[in-house]
Amino acid sequence: MSRQSNRTTDSKKMNSELFTLTYGALVTQLCKDYENDEEVNKQLDKMGYNIGVRLIEDFLARSSIGRCQDFRETADVIAKVAFKMYLGITPSVTNWSPGGDEFSLILENNPLADFVELPDNHSTLIYSNLLCGVLRGALEMVQMAVDVKFAQDSLRGDNVTEIRMKFIKRIEENIPAGEE
Amino acid sequence: MSRQSNRTTDSKKMNSELFTLTYGALVTQLCKDYENDEEVNKQLDKMGYNIGVRLIEDFLARSSIGRCQDFRETADVIAKVAFKMYLGITPSVTNWSPGGDEFSLILENNPLADFVELPDNHSTLIYSNLLCGVLRGALEMVQMAVDVKFAQDSLRGDNVTEIRMKFIKRIEENIPAGEE
Repeated sequence: MSRQSNRTTDSKKMNSELFTLTYGALVTQLCKDYENDEEVNKQLDKMGYNIGVRLIEDFLARSSIGRCQDFRETADVIAKVAFKMYLGITPSVTNWSPGGDEFSLILENNPLADFVELPDNHSTLIYSNLLCGVLRGALEMVQMAVDVKFAQDSLRGDNVTEIRMKFIKRIEENIPAGEE
Repeated sequence: MSRQSNRTTDSKKMNSELFTLTYGALVTQLCKDYENDEEVNKQLDKMGYNIGVRLIEDFLARSSIGRCQDFRETADVIAKVAFKMYLGITPSVTNWSPGGDEFSLILENNPLADFVELPDNHSTLIYSNLLCGVLRGALEMVQMAVDVKFAQDSLRGDNVTEIRMKFIKRIEENIPAGEE
């Protein structure tokens, strides 16, 4: 508990470049370890998930944000508070489905992918897939099952980077969630 | 070049927690990949080196700092500018050797090691060894060969975390340096 109350007051702001390069080292290592891009993508998602289930506690402590009223509010909090806090950017929230259960985060600029060019033999690598896992894991801890995936990726030649988020269901509070 | 000039104006400040947890995922992965702590320590140092040789360009562009007069100035720049910029902390510079060729950076608080406890079977893991590699690689690019290692580590029960830096020699400009 002392650590947690520490964290809320202690804000270590840093530039993103060391993180960006360290993330690159992680992806490079996974590309060495696993046979194909699909496996690396899966691994990044899983690592992200395990990060998300831990990061949410820090996020709630820092942001003092309570339960969101609806998925629109969740979208805004993710884009304007969470991305700003941990990646220093504010994606735009767009492309809502008519039912309000799906939206896109558009990243003009993806800090994880600064300095990066995908080699030809990794054309199906979803380089920043960790982020999908982080979002999925963090939301699961606040009782939301959400499907998260990259719909566009500027590393793969798209104009922007787009993360598509689809609400699946509210999770009952008594089902324990944890590491995958 | 457009990317570099971009970088100097565009400062994406972020909190360290996502970086911390991502770094944890990297170390965990390496512990799976390599047989013993010594190999993991080596790998972290090597990865750090490759990061340092790239990060220095960003550092010089952002900080507008020119060549240091002596090792004491280098020590101050590392502690007060570089650590502040990329990790959000300012270590103290102490324990100078009489000859002025060695000093220590004392980290009261190591952002890489937040939330971390070393498992018993990794008692010789130098968890944050990436930092030594980063410092070594970055300094090599500004023609300084420096030996960098952890002298104390709060993760291993020491009161503080201490990085010891020893100046070895000035590197001739015409020797090309690069990835290890």
